[in-house]
Amino acid sequence: MAGEEKDRKAAFEAGIKLGALFHQFIGVPVSEKNAEILEKAMESCVKLQPFVVEVEVRIDREKLKSVSDMGYTSLSPDMLAARVVVEVDGSKAEGILEWNDEMKYPLMRLVCR
Amino acid sequence: MAGEEKDRKAAFEAGIKLGALFHQFIGVPVSEKNAEILEKAMESCVKLQPFVVEVEVRIDREKLKSVSDMGYTSLSPDMLAARVVVEVDGSKAEGILEWNDEMKYPLMRLVCR
Amino acid sequence: MAGEEKDRKAAFEAGIKLGALFHQFIGVPVSEKNAEILEKAMESCVKLQPFVVEVEVRIDREKLKSVSDMGYTSLSPDMLAARVVVEVDGSKAEGILEWNDEMKYPLMRLVCR
Amino acid sequence: MAGEEKDRKAAFEAGIKLGALFHQFIGVPVSEKNAEILEKAMESCVKLQPFVVEVEVRIDREKLKSVSDMGYTSLSPDMLAARVVVEVDGSKAEGILEWNDEMKYPLMRLVCR
Repeated sequence: MAGEEKDRKAAFEAGIKLGALFHQFIGVPVSEKNAEILEKAMESCVKLQPFVVEVEVRIDREKLKSVSDMGYTSLSPDMLAARVVVEVDGSKAEGILEWNDEMKYPLMRLVCR
Repeated sequence: MAGEEKDRKAAFEAGIKLGALFHQFIGVPVSEKNAEILEKAMESCVKLQPFVVEVEVRIDREKLKSVSDMGYTSLSPDMLAARVVVEVDGSKAEGILEWNDEMKYPLMRLVCR
Repeated sequence: MAGEEKDRKAAFEAGIKLGALFHQFIGVPVSEKNAEILEKAMESCVKLQPFVVEVEVRIDREKLKSVSDMGYTSLSPDMLAARVVVEVDGSKAEGILEWNDEMKYPLMRLVCR
Repeated sequence: MAGEEKDRKAAFEAGIKLGALFHQFIGVPVSEKNAEILEKAMESCVKLQPFVVEVEVRIDREKLKSVSDMGYTSLSPDMLAARVVVEVDGSKAEGILEWNDEMKYPLMRLVCR
């Protein structure tokens, strides 16, 4: 594969993983009790997908402290952060998902390297 | 089916529909532009399911007015309301999903009739 | 709460849990490698929800043996089984989700007790 | 933005959209009755997302002909096809999602142009 083509494909694959993670798991019941197992389960899902070499998922524990009267909440975009590294034929791309509080938006950005 | 058994089964079926609706669609990209088609699509999904005789889904337009800088948001529990009526062998049950602002919780409740 | 009312509410709550579980997790990337952690994560989610006293989630390992060329698949309805017991004010209801191969349908049924 | 950087970012954005679409909607109740409104609702969701200039979603009607005894099914990966075009600062990327029957896999691929 040509260098540029590999770079693009790596970027594409990184995007897939973040879009998938977000839309599969937003809404899942979460509290301080199961945040860790959820993070690990989410990471296990990303790891199965093609080209993934590294993945880290974090649920914001601070935001779990004052949830509903029921002691848990639904996972919301402002609680979820992730970082995934994919490698396509030697070309790496890193995708980052992070809540942007000013934009009120779960921003996904690409880090090339 | 005995009367009590039918009543319970109707209640069970109403619960299934609300749980399904909520967890399938929370997270979906939404704005004032597509709120109506999303409502209709969600209703169409509920109608396909067994025992359903009526369904109404509403996305809170007020809450769509001040969303992210991107002009849309992810459907969140506080925006979604629904009402479903199921009928099992003549026994009806109504399930209602409504955001409870005091509890900070998407409350689902059963109305028997 | 009157006896009948509690029975119905328990049935309703059992239904919510099964509908929620199914529609939250269908589509999640799964293989033999992460089936166990996914089961545990799913159980942890159900346990957080109100009235739940017992829950068991199973992903069919046999069906994971011959999946796609990519070594994993998306969790599909025929792979997922669950059993949840809820208790409302002393009244218990059990909901069971099990793939029915003849109907080609993920059947959810209520066991009262 | 440098040319290469824009190309990569466009590819990344195309990937996000396909991953999001797939994992948000797999599992949704579908039959010939609501396939069209679901397609339109899915397209409306993708259109809201940043950088999208074109989107087309198709649910395979043939596969809806022989579903469960209940007259509907859950949307499965082999039924869903999509094509999305994004544009980042003049650079376009096209992402395609199509079931690959030999691989038994919902393949997502990038078309650069």
